[in-house]
Amino acid sequence: MSRFSRAKKNHLQTVEGRRSVLESIRADRKIQKILLYKNIEKGKYLKEIIHTAETKNIEIIYCQSDELDKQSHTKKHQGIIAVVEDPKYHKLNDILDNISDSKNSLFIMLDGIQDPQNFGAISRTADAISVESIIIPERRSVSISPGSIRASSGALEHIKVCRVTNLNNSIKELKLRGFTIYGLDGKSSDIYADIKFELKSVIVIGSEGKGISDLVKKNCDHLVSIPMSGRVESLNASVSASIVMYDYFMKIHAKKH
Amino acid sequence: MSRFSRAKKNHLQTVEGRRSVLESIRADRKIQKILLYKNIEKGKYLKEIIHTAETKNIEIIYCQSDELDKQSHTKKHQGIIAVVEDPKYHKLNDILDNISDSKNSLFIMLDGIQDPQNFGAISRTADAISVESIIIPERRSVSISPGSIRASSGALEHIKVCRVTNLNNSIKELKLRGFTIYGLDGKSSDIYADIKFELKSVIVIGSEGKGISDLVKKNCDHLVSIPMSGRVESLNASVSASIVMYDYFMKIHAKKH
Repeated sequence: MSRFSRAKKNHLQTVEGRRSVLESIRADRKIQKILLYKNIEKGKYLKEIIHTAETKNIEIIYCQSDELDKQSHTKKHQGIIAVVEDPKYHKLNDILDNISDSKNSLFIMLDGIQDPQNFGAISRTADAISVESIIIPERRSVSISPGSIRASSGALEHIKVCRVTNLNNSIKELKLRGFTIYGLDGKSSDIYADIKFELKSVIVIGSEGKGISDLVKKNCDHLVSIPMSGRVESLNASVSASIVMYDYFMKIHAKKH
Repeated sequence: MSRFSRAKKNHLQTVEGRRSVLESIRADRKIQKILLYKNIEKGKYLKEIIHTAETKNIEIIYCQSDELDKQSHTKKHQGIIAVVEDPKYHKLNDILDNISDSKNSLFIMLDGIQDPQNFGAISRTADAISVESIIIPERRSVSISPGSIRASSGALEHIKVCRVTNLNNSIKELKLRGFTIYGLDGKSSDIYADIKFELKSVIVIGSEGKGISDLVKKNCDHLVSIPMSGRVESLNASVSASIVMYDYFMKIHAKKH
C-alpha cells in the first residue's frame, strides 16, 4: 500500500481545502496525516495549520498536485487534504441530557436534504447562531462527507450532528423534553415572522422539491411558511432554513436584552 | 456545421435543466432550439415545455444523451438543453425611469461575487421578494450564464440584471433618485434587524472572503452586520444576502398592513 493509497479504507475520510482543514485541526478531529502541495503558497490559514500540525505531531506529506487530485473527493482541495478518522455522530439523548432547563436551545432537523452544498451552507448558519445540534436521518440524506465539510467552510467540524434511524422518534423524544417543533411548509398560512418561538425549539427543513414528509409534518407543533411574491416560487433550501434560523436567533436575542 | 455544433458561436448560450428551460420559455426568452434526450421521462414541467415550444414554433431536436453532454456547460442538463440568444442586460436608467415615486423598490448590488451558485441562490430570493433589479459589475463578477441560470432554478430568467462598468457611478445615480444604500459589512456594529429600511433601498453584498470593496463601502449610507456567535464566523454569501433581503421584505410588508 503506497503512502498515497486512497483514504476510504480503515474508516478514513478526507477533509479538503484550507479553511476546512484548519477547522478540523481547531476542532481537534483525529487527523492521520496532511497531504500538502509542495509549492503551495503559505498564507495565514496555512501557517496556522502547519504550526498546529507540528505541535500535535501530525505528519505532513508534501506531494505533487496530481497526487492530491487522486485523493480528492471534492475536486476543490486547494492544495491541501487532511486524512482523518471517520466522523463521529452524536447521540440525541446525550445532547438532551446536557441541556440546562433555563437556557434557550435550538435543534435543526433535516428531512430529505440530499445536496451537500445545502448541508454545508446550513451548517455555516447553524454554527453562526450556535445551534445545539443538527439532526439528520440515516437514509436518503446528506452526511458528514468531504463535500459537505468543504461546503461548510469547516463549520461542520464544530457542530454536533445526530444521525438517527427515525426522525419521528426523535421528535417524540424532543417533545418529551419540552421542545416545540416548527416545520417549514410553503403551504402554511402562518408566516415565520409572526411566530413567537419558544426558547426550546426545533426547526424542521424539508427538501426543495418535496418539502417535509407527511408523517414528520403531522408531528410538528406548528407549520410556518416564508411568503413569496415572485414567479418561480421556490427558495434554495439553505436560504429558507437560514432565514427562519436567523429569525429565531434575533427574537431570542431580543428577548434576552 | 452539424446541428449539434456547440452553442457559443453567434451569440448563443445554453439554458440547462427542466426547470430552467421552463422558466426561459415562460419568460419569453428567444429560444433557437431545444435539445431533448430521446428517452426522457415526460413529467409536468416537460409537458408544458413541449406544448409551449410547439405553440411558439420552437424546434425540438431529440438526441442521444452523449450529444447533450457535449453541449452542456453545467454537466447537469437533466436531458434538456435550450439554445438561446445571449442574455440581454438592462440599463439602470431605463429601470429607474419606470419606478413610481410612491412605491417601495429594492435593488440588490453584488460587489465581487464570483460563484454562480451564489448568484443563482440570490436570484431565487430576489425573485421571491420581487426586487427591481440585480446590479453586477462588468469585471470580476458573476454573469448570466448556463451555471447561474441552472443554480437559480430559472429565476434569473425573470429578473432584470444590470451590468454596469462602475458600481460607484451606479450608487451615485441611485442616490440622486432617492435611494438609500445599505452595505453588508461584518465589522459594522449596526445589526440588520434594528434597521428601519427606507422604502427605496439598495442592499450591497460583497464576496465571502473580502466583503464590499473600500470605495463602495465608503459610498454606502449605512453599513449593517449580521451578528454571529459561532466559531467559523462566516455565512454563505447567498445566505447573508437572503437574510437581509427578507428582513427588508417583511418590514416593508408589515408597514403596508
